[in-house]
Amino acid sequence: MIERYYPAGMKEIWDEAAYYGFWKSVWQAVLRTRGQDELAAKLAGASLEPEAVRAREAINGHELNACLALLEEQLGGGAVQLMHRGLTSSDVMDTARMLQLNRSLTLIQKTLDPVLSALKDKAVKYKHLIICGRTHGQWAEPTTLGLKFARFLSSGQRAAARLENVSAKIAVGKITGAVGTYSLISPDEEARVLARLGLKPLPVTSQIIPRDLFSDYLYALAMVCAFAEEIALGIRLMGQDGIREAAEPFASRQTGSSAMPHKKNPVICERICGLARLVRSHVEVGIGNIALWNERDISHSSNERIILEESSSLTLYILEKLLPVVQRLEVYEDNIRNNLERAGVRIFSSGILKALLETEMSRDEAYAVTKQIFQSGDDPAAVRKLLGEKTSLSAEAVSRALDPKEYVKHVDDIFKRMGL
Amino acid sequence: MIERYYPAGMKEIWDEAAYYGFWKSVWQAVLRTRGQDELAAKLAGASLEPEAVRAREAINGHELNACLALLEEQLGGGAVQLMHRGLTSSDVMDTARMLQLNRSLTLIQKTLDPVLSALKDKAVKYKHLIICGRTHGQWAEPTTLGLKFARFLSSGQRAAARLENVSAKIAVGKITGAVGTYSLISPDEEARVLARLGLKPLPVTSQIIPRDLFSDYLYALAMVCAFAEEIALGIRLMGQDGIREAAEPFASRQTGSSAMPHKKNPVICERICGLARLVRSHVEVGIGNIALWNERDISHSSNERIILEESSSLTLYILEKLLPVVQRLEVYEDNIRNNLERAGVRIFSSGILKALLETEMSRDEAYAVTKQIFQSGDDPAAVRKLLGEKTSLSAEAVSRALDPKEYVKHVDDIFKRMGL
Amino acid sequence: MIERYYPAGMKEIWDEAAYYGFWKSVWQAVLRTRGQDELAAKLAGASLEPEAVRAREAINGHELNACLALLEEQLGGGAVQLMHRGLTSSDVMDTARMLQLNRSLTLIQKTLDPVLSALKDKAVKYKHLIICGRTHGQWAEPTTLGLKFARFLSSGQRAAARLENVSAKIAVGKITGAVGTYSLISPDEEARVLARLGLKPLPVTSQIIPRDLFSDYLYALAMVCAFAEEIALGIRLMGQDGIREAAEPFASRQTGSSAMPHKKNPVICERICGLARLVRSHVEVGIGNIALWNERDISHSSNERIILEESSSLTLYILEKLLPVVQRLEVYEDNIRNNLERAGVRIFSSGILKALLETEMSRDEAYAVTKQIFQSGDDPAAVRKLLGEKTSLSAEAVSRALDPKEYVKHVDDIFKRMGL
Amino acid sequence: MIERYYPAGMKEIWDEAAYYGFWKSVWQAVLRTRGQDELAAKLAGASLEPEAVRAREAINGHELNACLALLEEQLGGGAVQLMHRGLTSSDVMDTARMLQLNRSLTLIQKTLDPVLSALKDKAVKYKHLIICGRTHGQWAEPTTLGLKFARFLSSGQRAAARLENVSAKIAVGKITGAVGTYSLISPDEEARVLARLGLKPLPVTSQIIPRDLFSDYLYALAMVCAFAEEIALGIRLMGQDGIREAAEPFASRQTGSSAMPHKKNPVICERICGLARLVRSHVEVGIGNIALWNERDISHSSNERIILEESSSLTLYILEKLLPVVQRLEVYEDNIRNNLERAGVRIFSSGILKALLETEMSRDEAYAVTKQIFQSGDDPAAVRKLLGEKTSLSAEAVSRALDPKEYVKHVDDIFKRMGL
Repeated sequence: MIERYYPAGMKEIWDEAAYYGFWKSVWQAVLRTRGQDELAAKLAGASLEPEAVRAREAINGHELNACLALLEEQLGGGAVQLMHRGLTSSDVMDTARMLQLNRSLTLIQKTLDPVLSALKDKAVKYKHLIICGRTHGQWAEPTTLGLKFARFLSSGQRAAARLENVSAKIAVGKITGAVGTYSLISPDEEARVLARLGLKPLPVTSQIIPRDLFSDYLYALAMVCAFAEEIALGIRLMGQDGIREAAEPFASRQTGSSAMPHKKNPVICERICGLARLVRSHVEVGIGNIALWNERDISHSSNERIILEESSSLTLYILEKLLPVVQRLEVYEDNIRNNLERAGVRIFSSGILKALLETEMSRDEAYAVTKQIFQSGDDPAAVRKLLGEKTSLSAEAVSRALDPKEYVKHVDDIFKRMGL
Repeated sequence: MIERYYPAGMKEIWDEAAYYGFWKSVWQAVLRTRGQDELAAKLAGASLEPEAVRAREAINGHELNACLALLEEQLGGGAVQLMHRGLTSSDVMDTARMLQLNRSLTLIQKTLDPVLSALKDKAVKYKHLIICGRTHGQWAEPTTLGLKFARFLSSGQRAAARLENVSAKIAVGKITGAVGTYSLISPDEEARVLARLGLKPLPVTSQIIPRDLFSDYLYALAMVCAFAEEIALGIRLMGQDGIREAAEPFASRQTGSSAMPHKKNPVICERICGLARLVRSHVEVGIGNIALWNERDISHSSNERIILEESSSLTLYILEKLLPVVQRLEVYEDNIRNNLERAGVRIFSSGILKALLETEMSRDEAYAVTKQIFQSGDDPAAVRKLLGEKTSLSAEAVSRALDPKEYVKHVDDIFKRMGL
Repeated sequence: MIERYYPAGMKEIWDEAAYYGFWKSVWQAVLRTRGQDELAAKLAGASLEPEAVRAREAINGHELNACLALLEEQLGGGAVQLMHRGLTSSDVMDTARMLQLNRSLTLIQKTLDPVLSALKDKAVKYKHLIICGRTHGQWAEPTTLGLKFARFLSSGQRAAARLENVSAKIAVGKITGAVGTYSLISPDEEARVLARLGLKPLPVTSQIIPRDLFSDYLYALAMVCAFAEEIALGIRLMGQDGIREAAEPFASRQTGSSAMPHKKNPVICERICGLARLVRSHVEVGIGNIALWNERDISHSSNERIILEESSSLTLYILEKLLPVVQRLEVYEDNIRNNLERAGVRIFSSGILKALLETEMSRDEAYAVTKQIFQSGDDPAAVRKLLGEKTSLSAEAVSRALDPKEYVKHVDDIFKRMGL
Repeated sequence: MIERYYPAGMKEIWDEAAYYGFWKSVWQAVLRTRGQDELAAKLAGASLEPEAVRAREAINGHELNACLALLEEQLGGGAVQLMHRGLTSSDVMDTARMLQLNRSLTLIQKTLDPVLSALKDKAVKYKHLIICGRTHGQWAEPTTLGLKFARFLSSGQRAAARLENVSAKIAVGKITGAVGTYSLISPDEEARVLARLGLKPLPVTSQIIPRDLFSDYLYALAMVCAFAEEIALGIRLMGQDGIREAAEPFASRQTGSSAMPHKKNPVICERICGLARLVRSHVEVGIGNIALWNERDISHSSNERIILEESSSLTLYILEKLLPVVQRLEVYEDNIRNNLERAGVRIFSSGILKALLETEMSRDEAYAVTKQIFQSGDDPAAVRKLLGEKTSLSAEAVSRALDPKEYVKHVDDIFKRMGL
């Protein structure tokens, strides 16, 4: 994982030393379950330096056997015998992986929480700030800035629910032997070892934990990133010069371009969009890892070493970067008002159409009249005049249709429904 | 969707005529909610022929406005006024899409059920049939054929749980207007219309239903296909000549190759693997549809027209094809026994290693001795002799280690745990 | 392939009837090579109705054997003997596929040509129309609208070069027998049959044509779509209300929204973006089809039936839709000028920085001064005043730096280099 | 990039220090072009420690401005003025990226060469070693082991051709300013700077080099990996117990399983398959980077920092691992012969069918007879007897059809055609 996007919290879980640390946790749980508390304590102090492991592995071509050899040197053969007896490598490795996934997930959940809070704050703060809605990049009916944030919040809540759902699934481990039959260990002993680690057994396994669980994990993370991308894209769009209704915060010491000193580029939001693209590509790799040969082949393992660490780190990184962007978002209320004015009366065409449909006019005719009037120009007075000439709408009906507040009168209902 | 892989059940949901039928369902629910039962009945009888829609759309470039025009001709302007007043196109289209998704999901769930039953039957039937386990394509500890099926079943149960989870999420619709503000309709009316369709409102929407729900749907389907792929790959591997422990059933009138009349190719399993590859690629497309511009852009819609229908149809197709393959799987018990014999004693190396670890021997030494003995040959007598010479294991310990039943003694526990 | 996005030209190549037509082409070439011109002519008139083939295939489970049976009924056993003797199914099917790919590619190339011409025309027409450049969505140095089109053109030329490159690769076929050994036919006869079809043999094959060639085809198409997406996105961005420098053309009878009659949505450009997303997802599926089992397994075939037709059709569809959008693009020169004015002097910050770097000032200081001046406001007079106060730049140097023409003085050089 | 799969050669190109080294190369070329050889030499000695850059970047949020500041401290403001005057960050960064791509490609090409040689050697060595062909995992017509290698070689040659093709495309750089207009530098100066770096200008650019070139690079690499995967999968299939015709070499000190000491797992081939899956997923990310906003947005950059390094490193790693596997492949000629015997006469069914088609028998009848005979059993004598009873084939015709050499008689032709 490149340094640049590797949050400290994830490094502690995913770098090689940490990974071997989780192996030791599994073996310690085995030892404790076997009544060897003292050995477990000694094991905790033993060292599995990544470089030493790699050197040993260069000889025997097997990462876990390399670790066993190193531990045997430090703890003596007896200890190693006791801790790995009846186990196969994957019992240790896969259970350790699950510890990593569980820890990462918790970290991601904790980092998502304040993002949701920040979105909630913005939703509430701008609940009634009318802003020009946009569909297809074009001015549409009025909405409120708060409602945009309510949408982001709702999306984030669904992302959080996915994490919650997956956290229950991945709280599992496996110590079932070389082909999943408990050939040399009992289901009962497995349950006791896993319980010490906060994990549960699976109904049945092969040599390894089924890879669809890893895919679920990768998908849930990709969906957190998609949620962040949604917000990042939204901010980039609002921040464009010519529109400029809100923008990514820009520190005064920050520089935007080496050639053009005036620039305040939304580089964090752009970065989020680019990384989200990568995280979601890992899902297909993960699904491709599910169908393995017989009781297992190891083709999944090489790419998992990369994508699990990377998706975990990038998701956390994205959330860490998103938080201050949301919290300190620059909102330009003047521009929002100016844009509403520039948009003119055309954004009320739907209200006029609806008013006409409440008269005797047929839909076809009503649509044609409305389209003609609103595509001809934006001057409110001119539009009112045309409406008077071409329709039988009352002045009151016209005024209601041209009043932005009419369009957002249900915002309170939505917020109430969301508990905001 | 190509005819070849398009199950009748899905065609009834996804072809263009069916899609417009769901539009009519939405409008009918609107009419009924507005007390227009008679009009709703008339609408039910109105025709929206895909070709007619396309012809009209060629003129005005808008699919839903084309339908409204056609309906106005048949039902008169009043009806159309009443049914679409206050609605935006996406209120109808997206709610109709959700009806399609819900119907498809139900169909897929119903088709998955008998596959799970068939797997259960096989698991129980072959619970104690000892078969050589395989890891990395190579003979490993003994397992049972029933346990392989128990694994497939467990995987299928997780796939079913994903469908269940997503079915709750997608039972939603939206009638919230052009930018999601209920500008021209009330939340209350939305709830009543949706209730008639068996759907619920979302907390908040843009012009459309948030696309992460579609992504969840696509992912759940891809995971059903991954489950099927797992089984299909397992059968292809067991069916290889030289191994041939089980095989895809082959009808007597079936022909396998135009050049080589002797062939009985597992073409269904191969087909499943190929289609699963495609269905999972749709997930990334679906995630890419989530971050849209402002209150919506329509870039998602064009690919959704293809991938939703395709993923739904292919998933159902795969399950329909998988069922008879599982049900009528050819199991060659003789070959299973022969292969166990060919595998010889080497597959018991783990038992010997464990036995040695229970003596005084260090792990390092035990491993080296076991490796040496078992890589030198497969003759049971020779191995027993070497074990006698090089280790202090008792004859009884050796016999236990070389007894395949020892390795599968916990199969009953696993089956009990799974409720089998 | 859904009707909606299925150009007539592709239908003629890809629907099932057409596919069987290509099979007949291969068999005809075999017959002619074997001196059976009369039989070849009879075969040309024989019928392979998709429904009839499917009915027969339902019995024997083999598509090509089904066709042979149907042809035997029409032409007698002798003819079928002669045309398929020594061939395996894939000799016919794969060679037919290559004919489809070649025909599709030609069609796509022909449709790309006028798009390139249209881009050229626009580039030349707007060569000197100064427009505000944008990076990160924000105003940057001036450029010209023609230069934007020159970029699109250059991108399209690279897309065309990829098609050209792939067209040479896929002009191949294979009649090498069941495992690629020419067991029952000679390399010489293969060469003669293929020559009649405008194809060449490959150095060596398995039962089938190596799938990396199909992947190359899919990639080249995805890159045509990426090129189209680039333009479509560019137009969507320029067309946004508040910016509105250019827009997708909108027919007067077209309707943009069923609720908001004023809308002129860039639905074609959005559609292109959505479809491009799908076409590029097929590349990964295609690469996943390359590594097959031994002399072949058929897992690639099921998804190829879908993705080859779909990528071909969608690519052509995209180009057919892109052409009129480029040709009739609406350019709003007034808005372009207004936006330049709104952008103000800040877009000249790079010129000022450069001018300062040509004085004695250090880069650090020059950068700080420029940033400070340009982030403080946009009023040209105020900026000139500040420049006078804080720098030693001559009035002439300032004027040059604030003159948009200075920034595009090399546009002619670029156009000359591109032969425009 | 994780240490484990990061070849030293790639580290020298891709780690952060190396990247900044390439930036210095670009600036040196600028200085030399501007006649500042002395400054260029001083710059070569200046230090851009990644940690120092990151610390500075933490303040100003701009990587390149951070470097400029560090260099200014070391070289003085004048030097920095001269080397970056008229340039925008991307001029330096993107040109440096291209240097990285070019260097990586050369390294990959050099590493592919010996793999092709090794495949050639094996093809020639086993040219005439008859082995049972396999389609769909089942025994098919005989082929030769050499022909399998010839196929791999041919596939590798196509992979090499793709690298060659892309190497010409990516030998480009860009120094065209902030929006690609050469606002502050001339095309002529660009050409001279790039020439010093062995690069050429592009016809036209935005702020950055068009991303389709990066996509071409990623695709070419993914195709090298697909080629390696093809071989790796082939070896895994041949190495399965029960088939065991060839196997990945296994060092005597290597250990295969911590639980089952007898195992010799093909872990390298499996690893290659898993990594290839990841590299090909980067193509879709790369294509998604092409369509950027206006004159550029920076969303591509964050994922490129990861995928370019990763695809480059993994491709090289795969080739480095593949080479000894091919060179020292274990071939079990006894098993190959035994398998041929086990396959029995059925693999000659195509020859019998062809012989029958040369008699008066209709294809339908001939097929039915052959299928019946060969599906009934494998005993050569019994088959000969049935052939005598049910067909009019001469003993000579039968013998020819049952002679494996008949099936591979064109192998020499193929090898000659390939120049082997």
